[in-house]
Amino acid sequence: MVGGGEGAYIGGIHRFAARLDNHYDLVAGAFDVDAERGHSFAAKNFIDRDRSYGDYLGMVTGERTRDDRIDVVAICTPNHTHFPIAKAFLEAGFDVICEKPMTTTVEDAIALHDLGQSTGRFLGVTYTYSGYPMVHEARAMVARGDLGKVRVVQVEYPLEWMATGIELQGNQQAAWRTDPKKNGRGGSIGDIGTHAYHLAGFVTGLKAEAVAADLATFVEGRALDDNAHVMIRYEGGARGLLWSSQVAIGQSNGLRLRVFGENGSLAWHQEQPNELVFTRLFGAPETIKRGRDDLTDGARVRTRTPPGHPEGYIEAFTNLYSGFAAVIRAKESGAPAGSFGEGIPSSYDGLKGVAFVDAVVDSHEKHNGGWLPLQFA
Amino acid sequence: MVGGGEGAYIGGIHRFAARLDNHYDLVAGAFDVDAERGHSFAAKNFIDRDRSYGDYLGMVTGERTRDDRIDVVAICTPNHTHFPIAKAFLEAGFDVICEKPMTTTVEDAIALHDLGQSTGRFLGVTYTYSGYPMVHEARAMVARGDLGKVRVVQVEYPLEWMATGIELQGNQQAAWRTDPKKNGRGGSIGDIGTHAYHLAGFVTGLKAEAVAADLATFVEGRALDDNAHVMIRYEGGARGLLWSSQVAIGQSNGLRLRVFGENGSLAWHQEQPNELVFTRLFGAPETIKRGRDDLTDGARVRTRTPPGHPEGYIEAFTNLYSGFAAVIRAKESGAPAGSFGEGIPSSYDGLKGVAFVDAVVDSHEKHNGGWLPLQFA
Amino acid sequence: MVGGGEGAYIGGIHRFAARLDNHYDLVAGAFDVDAERGHSFAAKNFIDRDRSYGDYLGMVTGERTRDDRIDVVAICTPNHTHFPIAKAFLEAGFDVICEKPMTTTVEDAIALHDLGQSTGRFLGVTYTYSGYPMVHEARAMVARGDLGKVRVVQVEYPLEWMATGIELQGNQQAAWRTDPKKNGRGGSIGDIGTHAYHLAGFVTGLKAEAVAADLATFVEGRALDDNAHVMIRYEGGARGLLWSSQVAIGQSNGLRLRVFGENGSLAWHQEQPNELVFTRLFGAPETIKRGRDDLTDGARVRTRTPPGHPEGYIEAFTNLYSGFAAVIRAKESGAPAGSFGEGIPSSYDGLKGVAFVDAVVDSHEKHNGGWLPLQFA
Amino acid sequence: MVGGGEGAYIGGIHRFAARLDNHYDLVAGAFDVDAERGHSFAAKNFIDRDRSYGDYLGMVTGERTRDDRIDVVAICTPNHTHFPIAKAFLEAGFDVICEKPMTTTVEDAIALHDLGQSTGRFLGVTYTYSGYPMVHEARAMVARGDLGKVRVVQVEYPLEWMATGIELQGNQQAAWRTDPKKNGRGGSIGDIGTHAYHLAGFVTGLKAEAVAADLATFVEGRALDDNAHVMIRYEGGARGLLWSSQVAIGQSNGLRLRVFGENGSLAWHQEQPNELVFTRLFGAPETIKRGRDDLTDGARVRTRTPPGHPEGYIEAFTNLYSGFAAVIRAKESGAPAGSFGEGIPSSYDGLKGVAFVDAVVDSHEKHNGGWLPLQFA
Ligand SMILES: NC(=O)c1ccc[n+]([C@@H]2O[C@H](COP(=O)([O-])OP(=O)(O)OC[C@H]3O[C@@H](n4cnc5c(N)ncnc54)[C@H](O)[C@@H]3O)[C@@H](O)[C@H]2O)c1
Ligand SMILES: NC(=O)c1ccc[n+]([C@@H]2O[C@H](COP(=O)([O-])OP(=O)(O)OC[C@H]3O[C@@H](n4cnc5c(N)ncnc54)[C@H](O)[C@@H]3O)[C@@H](O)[C@H]2O)c1
Ligand SMILES: NC(=O)c1ccc[n+]([C@@H]2O[C@H](COP(=O)([O-])OP(=O)(O)OC[C@H]3O[C@@H](n4cnc5c(N)ncnc54)[C@H](O)[C@@H]3O)[C@@H](O)[C@H]2O)c1
Ligand SMILES: NC(=O)c1ccc[n+]([C@@H]2O[C@H](COP(=O)([O-])OP(=O)(O)OC[C@H]3O[C@@H](n4cnc5c(N)ncnc54)[C@H](O)[C@@H]3O)[C@@H](O)[C@H]2O)c1
Repeated sequence: MVGGGEGAYIGGIHRFAARLDNHYDLVAGAFDVDAERGHSFAAKNFIDRDRSYGDYLGMVTGERTRDDRIDVVAICTPNHTHFPIAKAFLEAGFDVICEKPMTTTVEDAIALHDLGQSTGRFLGVTYTYSGYPMVHEARAMVARGDLGKVRVVQVEYPLEWMATGIELQGNQQAAWRTDPKKNGRGGSIGDIGTHAYHLAGFVTGLKAEAVAADLATFVEGRALDDNAHVMIRYEGGARGLLWSSQVAIGQSNGLRLRVFGENGSLAWHQEQPNELVFTRLFGAPETIKRGRDDLTDGARVRTRTPPGHPEGYIEAFTNLYSGFAAVIRAKESGAPAGSFGEGIPSSYDGLKGVAFVDAVVDSHEKHNGGWLPLQFA
Repeated sequence: MVGGGEGAYIGGIHRFAARLDNHYDLVAGAFDVDAERGHSFAAKNFIDRDRSYGDYLGMVTGERTRDDRIDVVAICTPNHTHFPIAKAFLEAGFDVICEKPMTTTVEDAIALHDLGQSTGRFLGVTYTYSGYPMVHEARAMVARGDLGKVRVVQVEYPLEWMATGIELQGNQQAAWRTDPKKNGRGGSIGDIGTHAYHLAGFVTGLKAEAVAADLATFVEGRALDDNAHVMIRYEGGARGLLWSSQVAIGQSNGLRLRVFGENGSLAWHQEQPNELVFTRLFGAPETIKRGRDDLTDGARVRTRTPPGHPEGYIEAFTNLYSGFAAVIRAKESGAPAGSFGEGIPSSYDGLKGVAFVDAVVDSHEKHNGGWLPLQFA
Repeated sequence: MVGGGEGAYIGGIHRFAARLDNHYDLVAGAFDVDAERGHSFAAKNFIDRDRSYGDYLGMVTGERTRDDRIDVVAICTPNHTHFPIAKAFLEAGFDVICEKPMTTTVEDAIALHDLGQSTGRFLGVTYTYSGYPMVHEARAMVARGDLGKVRVVQVEYPLEWMATGIELQGNQQAAWRTDPKKNGRGGSIGDIGTHAYHLAGFVTGLKAEAVAADLATFVEGRALDDNAHVMIRYEGGARGLLWSSQVAIGQSNGLRLRVFGENGSLAWHQEQPNELVFTRLFGAPETIKRGRDDLTDGARVRTRTPPGHPEGYIEAFTNLYSGFAAVIRAKESGAPAGSFGEGIPSSYDGLKGVAFVDAVVDSHEKHNGGWLPLQFA
Repeated sequence: MVGGGEGAYIGGIHRFAARLDNHYDLVAGAFDVDAERGHSFAAKNFIDRDRSYGDYLGMVTGERTRDDRIDVVAICTPNHTHFPIAKAFLEAGFDVICEKPMTTTVEDAIALHDLGQSTGRFLGVTYTYSGYPMVHEARAMVARGDLGKVRVVQVEYPLEWMATGIELQGNQQAAWRTDPKKNGRGGSIGDIGTHAYHLAGFVTGLKAEAVAADLATFVEGRALDDNAHVMIRYEGGARGLLWSSQVAIGQSNGLRLRVFGENGSLAWHQEQPNELVFTRLFGAPETIKRGRDDLTDGARVRTRTPPGHPEGYIEAFTNLYSGFAAVIRAKESGAPAGSFGEGIPSSYDGLKGVAFVDAVVDSHEKHNGGWLPLQFA
């Protein structure tokens, strides 16, 4: 693992996710931008001292030559470092699990994606929400035609935590997220809009063709958008709205997706992730619960407990990790990755996400909110 | 009453609304485009035969000269007839309660608004949802600063009932709503988007300055939009999204408003209209119920039952009617209209609504979705 | 109308209910225990001075001899007065709509029920909640076998408003409700438990056979129970719990019914009365909305607006009133009362309710909570 | 681990719980009543062959003499085997984590509890739901007086899965649960009622003094109750209802607790475990979310993710396991167990649960539903 040290947010979730299904052992890391802090963190986490590295380059060098070298590295650092770190590990022949957004520029994203392809290493991106079983169920339902042709795709991801200028009050996570150099061009749209965008495409299977956007910065002095409104046109004529916000008071982690087709609709809300509301044309809304026997394979393999025994965010993340494991093992063995490998967010998904953010910012900044086509979709 | 005959939708609601608070007697009407059907409907509704008119012109003529002439007429006909009917009654010296959208063109709307002003007659427009007590509470909370400066305004009005081509299967209401000549230029945006737009402005007190829109028609052969996505910019920098849809399977009458300010947020959903969810910055969401003693005046005068005894759509419509009565009486008596008259949707609101629809359609049709300023706001 | 004067609660609801469907005119009354206050209230309500009576006996005398005498009287006074007032009107040949509980003793209830039968007058009791369309739908679903044989019936009616000793702080409604002489023996169980009991029987069609109860009084100095727990055994082996409480903080008017059968279950909550949740054995919960075309007759005739346009408490009360009207007219005309007359709460229902309260109090007070059979069921 | 082999339910959850917080390694087991199946399961789970035992006695013998002997054993077998297995491990000097109900008779429960005391070994019982952070928050709120004196305690635990005779159709879990010899005297009340009973006591801190119960068996041929209604009297005058059901169609795992005090109320629902609804006297209901900074210590130490990132059943179970670890370590080290050790379900809780079930069955079977005092509370 690179990053994810003391006081970091997402690294800890990666560690839970690696552990829960028992597919991974955490044996090495460069956990912190501050080498000393990283070592002390490593010690607390039962990492051998000689595999706690002062920085990621040291880790690449150190691990590459070991017999028991790591199989895969998880990159849990701020956005701007994803590219050099991932590049270094790929080039050294390691598989890589990279946090989103994959990079901060489209150029880097293309380069990284290509590098993954050319090295033949695995490069996955942690679009967390595609790990939820009911998101897989939704995807399968759309694919199987339960909704008919998709017409409207509404997705939103509002958050409250940056509603005030906490980046000036010592909040580590907010600090780099509001710094264009570390975060990239897209504020809320890059940080969470990219999740929403991936979710919408993941469930509907539709490619977005063009975006028209209106960005805003509400907290004074902030350099990046903290609220984004995006109109989206999908292939085949479907239309969508995407809203991301870091200033939405009352919204803890309010990712919601609604898909409307010719014959039915689906609604999923991340804060009640064990349920999917499905309504057939002129029918009564049905609440479909995770864990039911009659769900599709994709949902069933990603479930650990019966209906009514809630699973959550850590389990979703675990599903990603177990999916990465399945794909990596399949790559080694040549055997198929099975249900668990299906829909795993790849470096191409990472590239699409970065390109989406870029187009959204361009629409707003350079085209006065006018429609811009998406390069990668 | 003009319109609202056998098989009509909204006329019956007007009659409930007129009756519930006992401010009105229904004594005359031209209830149907078909005179005979109108008479037979009138008979069933205890209207004297000589006050059941074959058409609205006959009604104007017949009523104008009676000693016991009507005080006010309710216009419950399809959109394209609002203008001539309202004009005739205003010119004849009657007060008018007109259905939305007030007219089908901006020119007509300006003319009608001016006519109301110049004749000194009352001309109100039935933006139903502003009759709900918790909508008044929301408005008062914003006005009193509970949310601080408003940043984001999300409003949506999705419906299912026109998800298929029912206009070709004999549905009377869908038939004229999909006919540009009778309905006006805006399909979903004119029929229901206009409600959403009014609600957002009513609660926030903000003027919309510009719109950028993406319209779509999903049901084959339909001449007007049945889905509209609109980005809105409000004065003072607030941003909004508005979604109206007639093809949203699973949504019965899904009008929802969410307002996010610097210090708090509000959410209201028309299908659970007795509640308002208010969240203070970093606070726990509070569910505020209609009927509480500590609500503001505007909510309290519009309430008939204690908390937990649900009131609904008919009561909201009644509140509009009782508000119209208060304003009309105040006009006659010179006394103030009181809380009940506060916020009554006026002909200027009607004009704003028509202008909004026009700008939305223009943005989409003539400016490729680009930003257009609003003329009346 | 008797009772329902200035500051009274339920009388005003009766007046809305009488007006909304246009089946009644309010023309006479003895509105208040204080004659003067009653007259002044009558004046404000457009009642002719000579039909505003100083007391109910005066009203019986005054109305009985008029040509335009009232058809039916509504009794909206505290419980202990229902018996003498209803008796006087029935004996004088008037139809009677009586508030619940019908009387304060079983003896009176038997006598009143018998008097209704022997005089041939209509005597209905306002079990409000049986007026809701979705309650009728639930009843029809059970009757048609959608749930299979009923096994478990859970009903509860918790309220907050008497959680403190408001009867000592000038609250008129609480004052007589906590006075055994005016209220009868059952505190919460008589006031609201009786509604819950009727609802459970109404929907399931099951007769209760025996009860075992635990009553409590939590507010100091209160003479009657303010919380009641009752175990119920129904014919055919079904079992139930009933909870009524006047001290349940956070519960505005929390009447809820859940019925579990061999093949399905139903849930209804009075605060969201437009929905019914139905679950088939091992199926996904379906949310059935009022106003759908495919509902049963009993629900459809009691509905005024399409799905998503909420109806509430006043509409439910109106449905009772319109049902009373249908039954009374049918009685006059000899024609059938139709769907609207179906399930109208009768004096026998009133008697059953009083007998239930009596048995519950006896179980607790005289049998240490042991099982007692119900006399009338 | 004893039990929890191929096709078993709860053993797998124990393994997740042991792993997630990294306090345990699973190194030995007698996983199955069938030794061969147990070995093959052990192999799949990376257990050394010589530590996969044919039965629990072999495991006691085998482990007791090893240098690297296990620290603690988890008993995940059907109810009737808990006693002999726990006894054997305690006597051999192992700490024990035992599934609920601790034993099938009160005598055994007393004996086991005493054995735990006399050996000085740890003996904990997995009352799963007390692992949820918001349950700890609720408990802390009651203890700190947020609700004032508790008046009413409503708890229910309805399930659907045994609504038909699945025990005759090869369902392993249902088979032993409906066999009095393996399950003990209480059907639904022993299986899930005991969870509800513990939860109510855990949150309120109140001792139950007496119960009066009505049991029913709805599925034909079943030997034990599948539905139980219990009235409870708590010390200090609080009253409660407890409902457990295995035939409640539509209820996946519907454990719900509501506590009403003099000054406020609390509601918690296991299927939405990240929220607690708190209402102050005459206040607006507040939805308190897990993960907030202002929660009490007990909730905060049991939380891994921020608000809006749902945690669930596995995390709750993990919290129990980490609590057991804290208590066991504290016992070894003499240092205090800290927040994580607080409220850990002990063998005395296990004994109380078994005594509760016994009293409920006795009330129903021997006292015709009359009140029975509880021996251990
Ligand atoms: N998938 C999701 O849902 C999700 C959620 C949150 C964050 N993220 C992503 O995870 C990444 C990290 O976000 P966070 O909120 O955890 O950030 P954070 O600030 O909490 O943690 C970043 C960690 O990286 C370390 N670090 C920084 N530079 C480093 C370097 N050069 N070498 C080694 N370590 C370095 C820091 O010391 C810190 O420990 C971001 O890319 C973010 O977008 C994804
Ligand atoms: N405020 C709201 O929430 C709301 C809701 C629904 C409809 N509306 C508006 O109400 C109006 C009517 O809609 P509806 O759905 O009730 O339509 P409808 O088709 O159900 O009814 C229209 C009625 O008008 C009569 N009519 C038509 N032309 C007439 C004429 N020239 N003279 C007399 N009567 C005539 C018809 O015979 C019919 O009875 C529309 O403007 C609509 O936008 C408002
Ligand atoms: N159906 C329901 O859901 C429902 C709801 C509330 C009340 N109720 C019932 O309605 C009845 C009235 O309750 P309330 O809460 O409205 O009481 P209230 O105290 O608010 O009103 C009682 C009214 O009766 C008048 N009154 C008293 N004695 C009278 C007499 N002898 N003659 C004429 N008028 C007299 C009082 O002056 C007052 O106007 C009770 O029986 C109660 O149980 C039913
Ligand atoms: N805490 C909770 O929420 C919860 C939930 C479910 C079950 N439980 C409890 O867990 C226990 C097991 O329930 P389950 O549903 O997992 O049962 P199960 O039938 O699914 O599994 C029982 C397992 O025990 C094994 N087994 C039986 N006898 C054995 C023996 N003598 N030696 C070794 N292994 C043996 C079986 O082979 C099987 O693997 C029960 O006591 C039950 O009440 C608790």
